[in-house]
Amino acid sequence: MTFPDWTPDDFRRHGHQVVDWIADYLARVEELPVVSRVEPGEIRAMLPPRAPEEAEAFDAILADLDRVIVPGVTHWQHPGWFAYFPTGASPPSILGDLVSSGLGVVGFLWATSPAATELESHVMDWLVDLLDLPQGWKTTGPGGGVIQMSASDATHLAFVVARHRMRETAPVERMVVYSSREAHSSVEKGARVAGVPHVRPVAVDGELAMVPAAFEAAVVADLEAGRTPLAVVSTVGTTGTTAIDPVRAVGQIARRHGLWHHVDAAYAGTAMVCPEFRHHQDGLELVDSYVFNPHKWMLTNFDCSAFWVADRRPLIEAMSILPPYLRNAASESGQVIDYRDWHVPLGRRFRALKLWFVLRSYGAEGIRAMVRRHVELARGLADRLESDPRFELVAPVPFSLVTFRHVAGDRATDELAAGLNASGDVYVTPSHLDSGSFIRVSIGQRTTEARHVERLWQLIDELAPPA
Amino acid sequence: MTFPDWTPDDFRRHGHQVVDWIADYLARVEELPVVSRVEPGEIRAMLPPRAPEEAEAFDAILADLDRVIVPGVTHWQHPGWFAYFPTGASPPSILGDLVSSGLGVVGFLWATSPAATELESHVMDWLVDLLDLPQGWKTTGPGGGVIQMSASDATHLAFVVARHRMRETAPVERMVVYSSREAHSSVEKGARVAGVPHVRPVAVDGELAMVPAAFEAAVVADLEAGRTPLAVVSTVGTTGTTAIDPVRAVGQIARRHGLWHHVDAAYAGTAMVCPEFRHHQDGLELVDSYVFNPHKWMLTNFDCSAFWVADRRPLIEAMSILPPYLRNAASESGQVIDYRDWHVPLGRRFRALKLWFVLRSYGAEGIRAMVRRHVELARGLADRLESDPRFELVAPVPFSLVTFRHVAGDRATDELAAGLNASGDVYVTPSHLDSGSFIRVSIGQRTTEARHVERLWQLIDELAPPA
Repeated sequence: MTFPDWTPDDFRRHGHQVVDWIADYLARVEELPVVSRVEPGEIRAMLPPRAPEEAEAFDAILADLDRVIVPGVTHWQHPGWFAYFPTGASPPSILGDLVSSGLGVVGFLWATSPAATELESHVMDWLVDLLDLPQGWKTTGPGGGVIQMSASDATHLAFVVARHRMRETAPVERMVVYSSREAHSSVEKGARVAGVPHVRPVAVDGELAMVPAAFEAAVVADLEAGRTPLAVVSTVGTTGTTAIDPVRAVGQIARRHGLWHHVDAAYAGTAMVCPEFRHHQDGLELVDSYVFNPHKWMLTNFDCSAFWVADRRPLIEAMSILPPYLRNAASESGQVIDYRDWHVPLGRRFRALKLWFVLRSYGAEGIRAMVRRHVELARGLADRLESDPRFELVAPVPFSLVTFRHVAGDRATDELAAGLNASGDVYVTPSHLDSGSFIRVSIGQRTTEARHVERLWQLIDELAPPA
Repeated sequence: MTFPDWTPDDFRRHGHQVVDWIADYLARVEELPVVSRVEPGEIRAMLPPRAPEEAEAFDAILADLDRVIVPGVTHWQHPGWFAYFPTGASPPSILGDLVSSGLGVVGFLWATSPAATELESHVMDWLVDLLDLPQGWKTTGPGGGVIQMSASDATHLAFVVARHRMRETAPVERMVVYSSREAHSSVEKGARVAGVPHVRPVAVDGELAMVPAAFEAAVVADLEAGRTPLAVVSTVGTTGTTAIDPVRAVGQIARRHGLWHHVDAAYAGTAMVCPEFRHHQDGLELVDSYVFNPHKWMLTNFDCSAFWVADRRPLIEAMSILPPYLRNAASESGQVIDYRDWHVPLGRRFRALKLWFVLRSYGAEGIRAMVRRHVELARGLADRLESDPRFELVAPVPFSLVTFRHVAGDRATDELAAGLNASGDVYVTPSHLDSGSFIRVSIGQRTTEARHVERLWQLIDELAPPA
């Protein structure tokens, strides 16, 4: 039997069909219920028990997208998406990623596709200027940027590098990492995966930001107990409420005691394209590594997590292993970056393309305009909530996340969240703090406009019982 | 200033342009030199020093693909690609990935897009049957499959799970992992990242397969020295020469001493669609985890690494952390899989779509036909090399990798490799063993046909000096 492959023209024909399908999806997504209504097992029940023996026609597959897949999709690209954080999937980003798939190169060495490495270094250096990060973080300086899969991978990597650097000083069983108690679960998970057994959730102030004195007290207590403070994570924009840890104060304490200082700005990093938000990350010269996700608020589709180190040497020292089949003249010249030494996996996609497409298609001004629109919408919603006696805000609104609760307590708050999510028009995230249940409204979907936030407010107003 | 976004119809128009660009690229890639000829820094020198402030027209970006990017690409999709292993980027896979980008969902919980989780479980179960893996590895049994980013991630994950399981038994400083000395560098890297300090490269036989007795002797020596044997990796198809470790014998020893047994079939796993290759993985019922890369030989574009565990409980126990913003009714019902608990990152792409597109577009018979064609081409080349007095094979050819050297020694072999790669028509990987330099010819690119291997042979014949 022969191998029944597609010609380039088959790809052209079916590619146009898929582009049309996506264009139609983007045009109609607003009419679909945001949250999928299927029950567990419902999607699988529509699929045959075994893979087909014979090739199927492409039209059959395309038809199944509508029949099987779309009913099981919760629409992250819906303009009524107010859950979690947004995930970027702008049209230029989708096309940049398509080019990456089409070229199908794996840039683990500079030599295996020089453009993949050089474009990545270049756009990461562009971002240093765009976000006003320290100039030394450019690949032309002592540091450098690299695209990771996710912020979880980046935070884990920071711990591994720090642990590797200290491996002759102390056993891992005594190592400790610190973050505010409001930090993302990836801190605890990254520490666990890296084998670091002690994670200290540090106390927060009234705005849910880390209390530097509490951090230092924890470090001192661990030192006195014979443990080894390894690393601290400052979060700029926590997942729960976008609280902002004091990067400079944390950095000073970290320097004093020799800890690796990692900044998690996964969501809020994008805001730094606007000068008016940069005071929130004051103190970056006291930081060893930094991550933000263009795949959240910067219009870039998953996965694209931007990670910088102030000094690339300990990173490469921890990650580099050179088997004979990867030796090559370019690497040995010392003139090139081999990104395989900058993360855990060997293989890597040409992800810089989509970031390049986004930065050029919107321009810095376009991204700033989007960020400012979302922030303005969030402040408008926060004002309305604040002036209604039924609600109270849970935390300040420095960016575009609004957190609030019903003053009648957890039950009213939980029921309101459930009601909103059952509407089909919006999706919010119910969450809780020690002080009780609350509702997260994250405004950051590319197509979210005033009318969508207006619809959300209308639903809140209708569904919420009196105070 | 307003946010200058694309309409769905802008996406449609530019999407058609990009599909056409890729179709043209696929049609002409054979005429391009396989290996990029740029010098370090040449690509970056063509890029502006700062990101644009204003949005640029899409046509300008598209033009730069040809001007800036293509000259810096080493063409993994060229039919003369005989380097490393192949990377799949079949037309259906590119389109499946495009749909994933278009939907832009993040399936870390079942609830965040049920179709993403259920299709992934389903196609991973399909693969259990297609590759004749143990039935208990299905998600409907005690085990289960999940798509990871890369085999390196999967091997690292196996070590982390094994280490977590043993965390109360022994300090990590005493833990040891084992593999054949021919195993991939991801074993050493995975151990290092997981903080496991001892890696034992076990002796190999004349066919470069692990010697079980040597493995057991190493385990016993470590036990006697007070260390803790943690895990062993059996490779089915090593990167150097596609050597095959004896999975059953290794598994029996692993069971006897309580080690986690991980199988790395990153490249060769695809061959198991054909019954005639399955004897090479005899003993899978003695395996705890298994990885193969559809993104290598199974026509699926990077990244798509298929990972199974025989028992999902220790995996989930090691990986699960539940913050308040991720709680939801479906997870609490226990009826669904939440794949965030099956790997290090939280976020995840809807990668099952491309695998589904591939399996349906080619059918099992189509994939078998491709594998058999590549294997037949490899055996034909091996026969020619073997019957020419200038050459000798370095290792057997169980799959589609041919390894050979010039009998005149390292210099003749190295110069032959350099000459082949300078031709522009083919790309091979120079490598070496203790016995000296050799050349890897990996036949597995989707479009490679007899005439491309014929051209490679013609070049070898022309460029090689007499014996």
